[in-house]
Amino acid sequence: MIKVGIVGASGYTGNELIRLLAAHPHAQLECLVSRSLAGRSVAQEQPALAGWAVWQYEDLDPAALAQRCDVVFTAVPHGAAMELAPPILQAGGKFIDLGTDFRFRNTDVYEQWYKTKHTQADLSHKAAYGLPELFRESIKTAHVVGNPGCYPTATLLAVGPLAKNRLIAVNDIIVNAVSGVSGAGATPKAMYHFPNCTENTQAYGTTTHRHTPEMEQGVAALAGGEPARVLFTPHLVPMGRGILSTVVVKPLQSDWTTERLTELYQDFYQSEPFVLVLGTDQLPQTKAVWGSNYCHIAVRYDSRSRRIVIQSVIDNLVKGAAGQAIQNMNLLFGLDETTGLNHPGILP
Amino acid sequence: MIKVGIVGASGYTGNELIRLLAAHPHAQLECLVSRSLAGRSVAQEQPALAGWAVWQYEDLDPAALAQRCDVVFTAVPHGAAMELAPPILQAGGKFIDLGTDFRFRNTDVYEQWYKTKHTQADLSHKAAYGLPELFRESIKTAHVVGNPGCYPTATLLAVGPLAKNRLIAVNDIIVNAVSGVSGAGATPKAMYHFPNCTENTQAYGTTTHRHTPEMEQGVAALAGGEPARVLFTPHLVPMGRGILSTVVVKPLQSDWTTERLTELYQDFYQSEPFVLVLGTDQLPQTKAVWGSNYCHIAVRYDSRSRRIVIQSVIDNLVKGAAGQAIQNMNLLFGLDETTGLNHPGILP
Amino acid sequence: MIKVGIVGASGYTGNELIRLLAAHPHAQLECLVSRSLAGRSVAQEQPALAGWAVWQYEDLDPAALAQRCDVVFTAVPHGAAMELAPPILQAGGKFIDLGTDFRFRNTDVYEQWYKTKHTQADLSHKAAYGLPELFRESIKTAHVVGNPGCYPTATLLAVGPLAKNRLIAVNDIIVNAVSGVSGAGATPKAMYHFPNCTENTQAYGTTTHRHTPEMEQGVAALAGGEPARVLFTPHLVPMGRGILSTVVVKPLQSDWTTERLTELYQDFYQSEPFVLVLGTDQLPQTKAVWGSNYCHIAVRYDSRSRRIVIQSVIDNLVKGAAGQAIQNMNLLFGLDETTGLNHPGILP
Amino acid sequence: MIKVGIVGASGYTGNELIRLLAAHPHAQLECLVSRSLAGRSVAQEQPALAGWAVWQYEDLDPAALAQRCDVVFTAVPHGAAMELAPPILQAGGKFIDLGTDFRFRNTDVYEQWYKTKHTQADLSHKAAYGLPELFRESIKTAHVVGNPGCYPTATLLAVGPLAKNRLIAVNDIIVNAVSGVSGAGATPKAMYHFPNCTENTQAYGTTTHRHTPEMEQGVAALAGGEPARVLFTPHLVPMGRGILSTVVVKPLQSDWTTERLTELYQDFYQSEPFVLVLGTDQLPQTKAVWGSNYCHIAVRYDSRSRRIVIQSVIDNLVKGAAGQAIQNMNLLFGLDETTGLNHPGILP
Repeated sequence: MIKVGIVGASGYTGNELIRLLAAHPHAQLECLVSRSLAGRSVAQEQPALAGWAVWQYEDLDPAALAQRCDVVFTAVPHGAAMELAPPILQAGGKFIDLGTDFRFRNTDVYEQWYKTKHTQADLSHKAAYGLPELFRESIKTAHVVGNPGCYPTATLLAVGPLAKNRLIAVNDIIVNAVSGVSGAGATPKAMYHFPNCTENTQAYGTTTHRHTPEMEQGVAALAGGEPARVLFTPHLVPMGRGILSTVVVKPLQSDWTTERLTELYQDFYQSEPFVLVLGTDQLPQTKAVWGSNYCHIAVRYDSRSRRIVIQSVIDNLVKGAAGQAIQNMNLLFGLDETTGLNHPGILP
Repeated sequence: MIKVGIVGASGYTGNELIRLLAAHPHAQLECLVSRSLAGRSVAQEQPALAGWAVWQYEDLDPAALAQRCDVVFTAVPHGAAMELAPPILQAGGKFIDLGTDFRFRNTDVYEQWYKTKHTQADLSHKAAYGLPELFRESIKTAHVVGNPGCYPTATLLAVGPLAKNRLIAVNDIIVNAVSGVSGAGATPKAMYHFPNCTENTQAYGTTTHRHTPEMEQGVAALAGGEPARVLFTPHLVPMGRGILSTVVVKPLQSDWTTERLTELYQDFYQSEPFVLVLGTDQLPQTKAVWGSNYCHIAVRYDSRSRRIVIQSVIDNLVKGAAGQAIQNMNLLFGLDETTGLNHPGILP
Repeated sequence: MIKVGIVGASGYTGNELIRLLAAHPHAQLECLVSRSLAGRSVAQEQPALAGWAVWQYEDLDPAALAQRCDVVFTAVPHGAAMELAPPILQAGGKFIDLGTDFRFRNTDVYEQWYKTKHTQADLSHKAAYGLPELFRESIKTAHVVGNPGCYPTATLLAVGPLAKNRLIAVNDIIVNAVSGVSGAGATPKAMYHFPNCTENTQAYGTTTHRHTPEMEQGVAALAGGEPARVLFTPHLVPMGRGILSTVVVKPLQSDWTTERLTELYQDFYQSEPFVLVLGTDQLPQTKAVWGSNYCHIAVRYDSRSRRIVIQSVIDNLVKGAAGQAIQNMNLLFGLDETTGLNHPGILP
Repeated sequence: MIKVGIVGASGYTGNELIRLLAAHPHAQLECLVSRSLAGRSVAQEQPALAGWAVWQYEDLDPAALAQRCDVVFTAVPHGAAMELAPPILQAGGKFIDLGTDFRFRNTDVYEQWYKTKHTQADLSHKAAYGLPELFRESIKTAHVVGNPGCYPTATLLAVGPLAKNRLIAVNDIIVNAVSGVSGAGATPKAMYHFPNCTENTQAYGTTTHRHTPEMEQGVAALAGGEPARVLFTPHLVPMGRGILSTVVVKPLQSDWTTERLTELYQDFYQSEPFVLVLGTDQLPQTKAVWGSNYCHIAVRYDSRSRRIVIQSVIDNLVKGAAGQAIQNMNLLFGLDETTGLNHPGILP
């Protein structure tokens, strides 16, 4: 059994890791760290796990964590994870950060967008970007995985086949996305107060959202290093979970059809267990992947504007966070990638 | 492997059976009947099962069903299931009806409330009422199971410990409940049209809801045959899934406390894997059991009015329908009752 | 023009007062007090009033308030309003408290349930309970009005015709109600965080909710002083606004019919502009009164249990708070009671 | 008083016309046509108008309509309105179509996208496009007004200042928008069934939505006839009302700032009563205009991609349909444009 530690176990992402790992046949929840809830039982604090969860939250003790765990997941604010990696790695453990501290190969970009000094630039350079469908090989041998952000996961899976095949202008990518409110975390704020959210779509972070450089890094990596430019506009919609990303790109050649693009995508993802490319008669909806690690994608060619539109959906807490992190853990430990994740979305 | 047939496989309940049985280690989906979608693939018709489900809907052929299946689930309108039972039973199969045709021991009551002639009164008399926590023994040896309605499931689990211990006036039970809209099925109607439901709580069926006699039958059976009287008021609230039932009863003795009642309930349900009695500091919420087979219950004594208030929550499509039906199947086939159902609710 | 002051102008209730009074032909918003937002413009702070509201929030100055205003509305936590009344009254102004400080004739009950010393017991004894349909005469001549709670408004309108006509056992009233989340106010808390509320019905305050004694006081007053007993169970449902109250009572005589009860209710409320008694073929829904000062009521006789079930709906921020307060202001100043409130609900 | 007829009075748009016109000081609802509900009372059929509306639905009789009404609003499927215009106009009445039959100056475009023969091409050529903020003069003198679609209203108001000032490449406009479900009308369908919509964002109409040519016509008209190209991607989000449109355009010059753009927009719309340009520290949210005729707009310059992003919100049933139609009626009859529409959004 893989002994697992989770730091930040009481937030939405940490809680989702517990939910999913508890059913994982080769993982064992060894240490659940929550500074605010240390000493409390998970069952008491998480109503959905009441009568089911047997664990207690513990305070943070990096040395003990390193000792007891084969892998540590961190689901903490940016800046908090980077210091935790060295002790785990020195003890021979693997480190999967669900935050942003290890997502950037170029830590200058991190420092610029996150206004935080990166103290483990070396580790960050060597870390793998944990999007298995696009960067699987580097993950397998990594010691540190930077688990992708929710918007970048949906968007890079959408644009991946075109970027990797060098079929589009990677410096002209327009991304509009909507997210359910759990993407903002478990901390109550006025913007996420139910009466302010219900019946409300809210614009936020227009031209300034921090997932922008992460998308650009991903696209550039796929396109052989060609610098990418993404204009990203996120929106908050009144649902708990789910992301839908609509990506508009300019193809280098203009003789595409929706049929040929669909074929290209279906070929590209044909052996991927978690990516489904919808047919030309279907479009994605977030609830079809609710609670699951799936990503559904549809692609269209608009001959009028000579653009390609790709639309993808994920559950932001699963494929956009905890599920993908477990997929990465499976890769790190040589397990079948779908272990513990093999269930469909729940609709209705 | 238990070979399973589902009649009415394309409705919400049938679809939930597919979702849950596909992950059941000892069941195999052998025949999915949907007259309206016969010949279509499940993956094509159910977006959440796209890329995951391998089955096709078939037309109804009772003889073939009897031949091919060890157990048949029916999730069809009342009146449609009763005729399907005999051929299945004659071929040695088990029959679990998720509708109302086999819920009543006294088919006069059925005929009166459902305005439908019952053609299989004998079978109905011998059928088990499939609420394992309260009627487990009769289910184990049954050939036909009438799977309980969603409101009766939540309500009978709430009132069970008191009724069975003869602690309340069973002729004076007041039940108020709210349900998510999936309880009304998958057929679009104005009342369930999204713009008419969002931001709306709707009263319906006041004093006339057909789950009333089912609750009364259940309470009476628990109370040794004493006639029960239930005043039931359901409401539709703007959520997809979930039922919360608030039950107000009069204790025969007035020296109760919330603590003693909670203890009584915890003792009563202590070995039940799917029922959790909350402590005196917690109250139930529907999302804590979302997608799961759990029922959460809290009980309070109101010394001012000398009444006991019990509140229970279930997911109407799981413990209130498909999950409980599988729990019954497990009992019928001598499996551990939790097989295929052992996962928590999903919150958020 | 009536010069209006509002203390607590930045909460949901205060904001709703602004929205409604701004369109009132005989009222003028003179002073909007918000300690937290003093000096800020309403238009800047309230996105729905952006480009429309011309006022600024001010700090609290009771003397100035008394000087400048003909009437002061207080929408503040309990305990904070009682001290503000004397200066206003001494200056000749009227005082309408939307909180609980002036709802109780018997301040012992207030002190017991609210755990707060009442420093203005005399004023509270003389204050009018501001439910015009049931206590209109005392409001007209009052100087202080205790504006009813949202649940008591819906519930007392539901039970009023029966209590006033002495047709029911007032010591055996069972109230179940659901509320939208705005009823909990504008302050973000985990229980009201969108991802925790969506798809969730939550029980809370079972047997302990503070609106219980307010309902009992109202019923007793209607029933000529006979002590009343209410068992009240509230629930939180995933909508922004709206209350539905389901009231179950025991009639003193058992020869009722739904038709006769409906007639009784229609007669009782026939000249009330804001109460609509639905016919025997309709049941109330909260969205039908969304944004309006209406209350819709339906009544049923259940011959099986010999109980009467009454169901009522209001918008908790309008008829349950700000709208009713304005209705009271209209009465205090001799205006037509519907002034500024004469618009229907918004559905969808 | 202006005598008003509404054809299609029982749909969402027709109903919203009734709600708003009933409060209009210079309009009188003379004839409400609904073929399906002819003879029924509005109060009976529309729960929010129960106890408030005094009208009855009538069957369609074009001659009588022409006789009795000064203006006729049509809220009917495309193809049904065009035949109704001539009799109204011949009798001297005004005609405002809330559908698509009179939105296109070039009826070839209409015929191509709507697959319907246009039988009144002449009338369509002379009709005014009823977006007052951008085409006010032509509306004032019109006899027929084609009331804009909901998405085009939000989008053209967003892009108007830039298009009219010839500051952008009008052949490269990318529009992503989300809509509440009432935009799809009142007819129940599976896609709009509550359990399928809640917690779900659904892509639909990607590259094929019929509002695309309407946006292109509008932009071209603003830009002096220069052909426009719009790539439009709509999405359905789980709310009843509201549209948010995110428009990405390429400026002809690249030396913009968000501050200068905001100033440009504020100048452009400074005397418009219903358009509010938000400051550089605010972004729009749909609920801020819920139930109102307002449009809120924010504009940003993204120096990284050298694009301008404009985001606008409206209530699809008010500014996107009935409210704007009344604004047009006010213009046609020389009234103050805000008559009957002068109220803010409702939040929460």
